[in-house]
Amino acid sequence: MKALLWEGDALAILDQTQLPFVEQYHRLTSVEEVAGAICRLEVRGAPAIGISAAFGFVLGVRSYTAADGNFSAYAQRVYDRLASTRPTAVNLFWALRRIKNKLLMVCASEEIESEGVIGEDVKNRLAENLLREAQSMAGEDAQVNRYIGEYGNLIIPEESTILTHCNTGALATSDYGTALGIVRCAHRAGKRLHVYVGETRPLLQGARLTAWELRREEIPMTLITDSMAGTLMYQKKIDLVLVGADRIASNGDTANKIGTYSLAVLAHEHTIPFYVAAPLSTVDIKLAGGEEIVIEERDGNEVRMFGGQAVTLPEVPVYNPSFDVTPARYIRGIVTEKGLITPPFASNILKHLANT
Amino acid sequence: MKALLWEGDALAILDQTQLPFVEQYHRLTSVEEVAGAICRLEVRGAPAIGISAAFGFVLGVRSYTAADGNFSAYAQRVYDRLASTRPTAVNLFWALRRIKNKLLMVCASEEIESEGVIGEDVKNRLAENLLREAQSMAGEDAQVNRYIGEYGNLIIPEESTILTHCNTGALATSDYGTALGIVRCAHRAGKRLHVYVGETRPLLQGARLTAWELRREEIPMTLITDSMAGTLMYQKKIDLVLVGADRIASNGDTANKIGTYSLAVLAHEHTIPFYVAAPLSTVDIKLAGGEEIVIEERDGNEVRMFGGQAVTLPEVPVYNPSFDVTPARYIRGIVTEKGLITPPFASNILKHLANT
Repeated sequence: MKALLWEGDALAILDQTQLPFVEQYHRLTSVEEVAGAICRLEVRGAPAIGISAAFGFVLGVRSYTAADGNFSAYAQRVYDRLASTRPTAVNLFWALRRIKNKLLMVCASEEIESEGVIGEDVKNRLAENLLREAQSMAGEDAQVNRYIGEYGNLIIPEESTILTHCNTGALATSDYGTALGIVRCAHRAGKRLHVYVGETRPLLQGARLTAWELRREEIPMTLITDSMAGTLMYQKKIDLVLVGADRIASNGDTANKIGTYSLAVLAHEHTIPFYVAAPLSTVDIKLAGGEEIVIEERDGNEVRMFGGQAVTLPEVPVYNPSFDVTPARYIRGIVTEKGLITPPFASNILKHLANT
Repeated sequence: MKALLWEGDALAILDQTQLPFVEQYHRLTSVEEVAGAICRLEVRGAPAIGISAAFGFVLGVRSYTAADGNFSAYAQRVYDRLASTRPTAVNLFWALRRIKNKLLMVCASEEIESEGVIGEDVKNRLAENLLREAQSMAGEDAQVNRYIGEYGNLIIPEESTILTHCNTGALATSDYGTALGIVRCAHRAGKRLHVYVGETRPLLQGARLTAWELRREEIPMTLITDSMAGTLMYQKKIDLVLVGADRIASNGDTANKIGTYSLAVLAHEHTIPFYVAAPLSTVDIKLAGGEEIVIEERDGNEVRMFGGQAVTLPEVPVYNPSFDVTPARYIRGIVTEKGLITPPFASNILKHLANT
């Protein structure tokens, strides 16, 4: 089961809004279709969004015609459309920058004049190069997740109960998963795990996606509402908390799915280690701290509805931030593909990035 | 709008499982119907459960016939059935003890031999006495709530943002409400309030009931998922937290709707005062601490489904405690009909009870 696959001339994405009841792939053949799928959360999870956008850029270049005029300006419009889909996960911008840099490099090395109309042959050569780059990114992401899994496995006790939030599994990435990749790795290593899964209102990624992934892997689990985490910790039923990340500032402050901050405070109060798992591409080194991270606010109907069913009156005002920021002081460590980063994060994140 | 009303020969309850979309009263005429309505949460909220059970006891006595045999044993069966509905809210047991004591007192003062078959006339006289007692209890509860509202109003700043959880309004009581009664009183006193309402998974009493009550009163409000409380506190958007209670141990430890404990820890971390509002009948003086409070666990389908709509696979294991316990150290004060109880709770709760 993969969240996304390249199928020769289209990006096939598993429509996550229909999981776990319907396993349906959509074939996306245009930039607009990819952007729409990202906006509607048919594909979600910071790494998977980034890879999807890279393939979306390829689709954009493939559908260029002379009628689109200046190729360089056209490519920028494609970039901007994909970049406008979701503001918080930095992997989106990282992936778009990388695929655009590849375009610039190919143009430079093949002496292609991109500031004007380009021909069909040139376009096809560019698209082929960009497709290989996007495929590399997908392959690297899967490999990065396996490294995260292996480094993360080192912090998992032989017998442990893990609380997780949202979905950080194969569905959120090219393959394998970040925080859930660690769980997968530890389970395959024979450790005796039990995973408590927060349902993750409003869109229930925990109940719909993480529960589904864990059941497929036969990893023992229990689903809870987000409000039950505190009482489980009080009952000493949680050994560690393991979450993903959508953007990490240079000081370690971490934006992740709404509800993560509450879990971090609760873990702190109960002296339970709280770990973040994310590829280094999630670090936004330009940002000094979490207060600079843009937090996406989504439609209030996500809260007013529950599984397609209205739960309150349509006129009820709603606040619906998709993410929150966990200050670095609550984080015991950040598991990356280069190993575990521990405090002080400001210097140690730099060291790990330099080591890339 | 009242959660429950006596209608001559039946207890009419507003079916809260259908709110806010359908306002339908059910006429309950038997013990079994009242017990079922309590189990299904058609009537809920600690004070309202207690009053409903008292009226249920009256219905039980009214339907006694000679075929039921020993009246005293029959009355005990009625008592036991009603007491078996929900284990956590102590008001249920308090109300049943009070109505049963009334029965014993009337039997004693009128020299009725209850250890045997009783006649129709005697039964009717007893039922009339018990009905007056149940009606007194309902009236007293409404008055108690008004006192809670007025004492509570003293702790509400002229301009403040209040976070609440679950439903503690008119729907949870005979009338007016406990924590929400304080909000109502402060609003009527002209204070400028904004209420953040946690939706309260799994059964969404915040989204369905509290949002509905606040909109009817035109009190400014915003609905959030339970997982958003922490980030609101971090943003300094919450001045105080105000919740109800289902049972309070003699040391002040408080059982309330699941999610309350998390809010208390979060409030503590952000130095935000956390208050409980409840009638003194919620205190269970027999219990030394919260660890002795029985916590109801309900069907996992409450988490797996909403309104007949599945949100995860049926085979997913679920943990579904209805309540959690907040240790007294997180509680700034308990607002009762006799005033605000502050720490040390063990001695101050006793003083307030002695003052009854």
